[in-house]
Amino acid sequence: TSSGVFLLQMGWGDLGAFGEPSKETPNLDQMAAEGMLFLDFYTANPLCSPSRAALLTGRLPVRNGFYTTNGHARNAYTPQDIVGGIPDSELLLPELLKKAGYTNKIIGKWHLGHRPQFHPLKHGFDEWFGSPNCHFGPYDNRERPNIPVYRDWEMIGRYYEDFKIDLKTGEANLTQLYLQEALDFISKQQASQQPFFLYWAIDATHAPVYASKQFLGTSQRGLYGDAVREIDDSVGKILKHLQQLGISENTFVFFTSDNGAALISAPTQGGSNGPFLCGKQTTFEGGLREPAIAWWPGHIPAGGVSHQLGSVMDLFSTSLSLAGLQPPSDRQIDGIDLLPVILQGKLIDRPIFYYRGNELMAVRAGLYKAHYWTWSNSWEEHSKGIDFCPGQSVAGVTTHTQEEHTHLPLLFHLGRDPGEKYPLSFASEEYQRAVEHISGLVQQHKATLVPGQPQLNVCDQAVMNWSPPGCEKLGKCLKAPESDPKKCSWPH
Amino acid sequence: TSSGVFLLQMGWGDLGAFGEPSKETPNLDQMAAEGMLFLDFYTANPLCSPSRAALLTGRLPVRNGFYTTNGHARNAYTPQDIVGGIPDSELLLPELLKKAGYTNKIIGKWHLGHRPQFHPLKHGFDEWFGSPNCHFGPYDNRERPNIPVYRDWEMIGRYYEDFKIDLKTGEANLTQLYLQEALDFISKQQASQQPFFLYWAIDATHAPVYASKQFLGTSQRGLYGDAVREIDDSVGKILKHLQQLGISENTFVFFTSDNGAALISAPTQGGSNGPFLCGKQTTFEGGLREPAIAWWPGHIPAGGVSHQLGSVMDLFSTSLSLAGLQPPSDRQIDGIDLLPVILQGKLIDRPIFYYRGNELMAVRAGLYKAHYWTWSNSWEEHSKGIDFCPGQSVAGVTTHTQEEHTHLPLLFHLGRDPGEKYPLSFASEEYQRAVEHISGLVQQHKATLVPGQPQLNVCDQAVMNWSPPGCEKLGKCLKAPESDPKKCSWPH
Repeated sequence: TSSGVFLLQMGWGDLGAFGEPSKETPNLDQMAAEGMLFLDFYTANPLCSPSRAALLTGRLPVRNGFYTTNGHARNAYTPQDIVGGIPDSELLLPELLKKAGYTNKIIGKWHLGHRPQFHPLKHGFDEWFGSPNCHFGPYDNRERPNIPVYRDWEMIGRYYEDFKIDLKTGEANLTQLYLQEALDFISKQQASQQPFFLYWAIDATHAPVYASKQFLGTSQRGLYGDAVREIDDSVGKILKHLQQLGISENTFVFFTSDNGAALISAPTQGGSNGPFLCGKQTTFEGGLREPAIAWWPGHIPAGGVSHQLGSVMDLFSTSLSLAGLQPPSDRQIDGIDLLPVILQGKLIDRPIFYYRGNELMAVRAGLYKAHYWTWSNSWEEHSKGIDFCPGQSVAGVTTHTQEEHTHLPLLFHLGRDPGEKYPLSFASEEYQRAVEHISGLVQQHKATLVPGQPQLNVCDQAVMNWSPPGCEKLGKCLKAPESDPKKCSWPH
Repeated sequence: TSSGVFLLQMGWGDLGAFGEPSKETPNLDQMAAEGMLFLDFYTANPLCSPSRAALLTGRLPVRNGFYTTNGHARNAYTPQDIVGGIPDSELLLPELLKKAGYTNKIIGKWHLGHRPQFHPLKHGFDEWFGSPNCHFGPYDNRERPNIPVYRDWEMIGRYYEDFKIDLKTGEANLTQLYLQEALDFISKQQASQQPFFLYWAIDATHAPVYASKQFLGTSQRGLYGDAVREIDDSVGKILKHLQQLGISENTFVFFTSDNGAALISAPTQGGSNGPFLCGKQTTFEGGLREPAIAWWPGHIPAGGVSHQLGSVMDLFSTSLSLAGLQPPSDRQIDGIDLLPVILQGKLIDRPIFYYRGNELMAVRAGLYKAHYWTWSNSWEEHSKGIDFCPGQSVAGVTTHTQEEHTHLPLLFHLGRDPGEKYPLSFASEEYQRAVEHISGLVQQHKATLVPGQPQLNVCDQAVMNWSPPGCEKLGKCLKAPESDPKKCSWPH
């Protein structure tokens, strides 16, 4: 059975099936109606790189090294001046699937490091079309090079130069390119009758948000909505393609997101987390609870809904299971195999750990969520208009100083209070019982935790994408400045 | 064609189909899947009595008298010491439907005045099972009598005495009684082959929230969720009953709410308004945007979605249209006939007026909403913990003083910003264009507006439910105190 993972940056509340009031995602809603909706599904970090590293390794970022110790509870990712990336010691899903004869392709943003040793084709992927970093820019190619776009081993151009993004109009045809890549890859695999893993990790809804001309202005929601519509349309075309090729019953497809909607960029460049608190960068529900849909015609009963606490890391274990493989036994794997949940309606008891950088901020078990630390962002940043919780403010919860609650965690019941507005009384029996249970889980977790070497500590302008492989052929090699390694500055 | 209207107090975000994360409303979700979901549907007031008066008259509360002039922009309703009620000059939907041979029944809360002249059977209903006021209590029957429950012309008991509500456990079997009444009425009408109008206006989700024993503890959402589940179950049973009797294709059914979720009572006694701002009592989207579903098998295409700006007042005109009747031509009717929307997918251009008491606070036209006044509640109330926007605060928008913006309205684009967090720049061309358009609508509206005599100004303890008709038979007549009319005090 092949696997396809759609990994977008989208908020819980961005899909019609999850209550977006414009209801403009007919294809994703159809995918949900034909498959299974996960209502309690989480990413592994409120930021993209660590979540993507977690998905592909089945392990928390604190284990696989996708975090920083430069500051307490600092989010970090892989801009192009970061020195680190995915360690060779980590076993990635595509590396393992290869043993079962899979062909693996990544389309879109890799984000697990851009230096040569971190190249996706050195970590199990057979094909790549996309970029190593976010599509920020345009840059001047002197202070900072534009981000390259790769086909497999080599770059084939750069954003804003060969792959246009019009920041004024928001027009870019990239999603169409990524769609075509997916359709072609699937056709090729169907023809060769080989199983495949397709990781469609595109970034149209990540600032700077873009959409193709035919989608611009089509949404009630502005440019962000246009991008959502184009992604929705693409997902629909990919699923239809699987059906038309007659391989949909042999292909498990999962749609989810790498972090909550970036409310800091809302409303033009950021989406919606529905009824949840705050967004990307935070460990409130808006930061990590994600839209999630499993689709596998003929296997998953149509219209299913699951309250299983799920994680992007489960896609690692589930895809291995579909390939008849076991997860590696020489290391801690945080993901679980969701097939019993999906196929037999089981509910597996497991906690969700909400990390921010090097700190365990919160833990969910059942319907209870305990916050051991609260923080939105600093007063200093907030006063400059950087707001992760626009329009929201819960006293003592959305704090602008890092508040420690390790002795008396703030406890919420996410069934009665999905918006994390009403902390339970410390004196209540319900509080005592739930916190005792969660504290046990935390102790157990911390006792066995072996943090990886932090990969996101050191930045160096010399390691930016000056001269990626293939640049000679294109005449696009740039001169790197002298190496000047320093601690990365992570504001949040 | 018969008409059924389910009118609850429920928030936009309380239904699975509208994105409630526990997804516990399978019957309502099924109703939506078989019928048409209205995503931009409004009640006529952020409070119950005026909304109900508007639904049954097709007219704004400011026209039919369901408002107060005791204070500026004060919400008002009909507690049992209110002297006023629905004027005889108003033509109610059931009065008109009678001319087409309909039998009309109200089950649940009337709320259009409890004095003899306001009795629902004097205003077109043929049958009544329910109460004239909210089920607050228990009272001591000295300072204040318990609320009577009527069957048709006479009371048959009182809440907390003959109709138990256990405030400690939240247990009450009232929804089951109301369900059975509906099933029996429908059976009787089917047997007699007479068209009917059934108005199922029950109050389990209004504080004090209650549910029957078999539903207590069944929801992830606590007591409020238990009540929602019971209502959902009841709606499912009523629709199934229509189908089993073979009359579903002759019965138009609409589900909606009389105001947004009462966030002041959340989380135990209040629901969710999803991504919208604030709740009941306010003229933000959370106060008036409602869940809404139209169902009419064989006529409405399954799975439809409409962005028609709709109003509870449209149920007046639509039900008349279904009966082959015209709305009265001697007065302004604010409701429109939704059948072209529902059956032919048309979109009718019309504004939504958001009143709070005697003040036009805001107007929506298309995707734009202009606030002419903003107010949540007073600082004085807020400091006592009365909060209509818990966890939400938008600077200059959720104001605690009444802020006038009649010269420069605050403008929101509800497609890009359904949560009313980002007012448009006054200087933008978009602002100028939209405000000019809406200002024209306001001028037109105000120029032709003939306010009704305000019914909700005077209170008198002598008019309370001391000795309702039928009390003698039950030995439940109480002695009324002396009449002492005074201005009603309306805090909000």
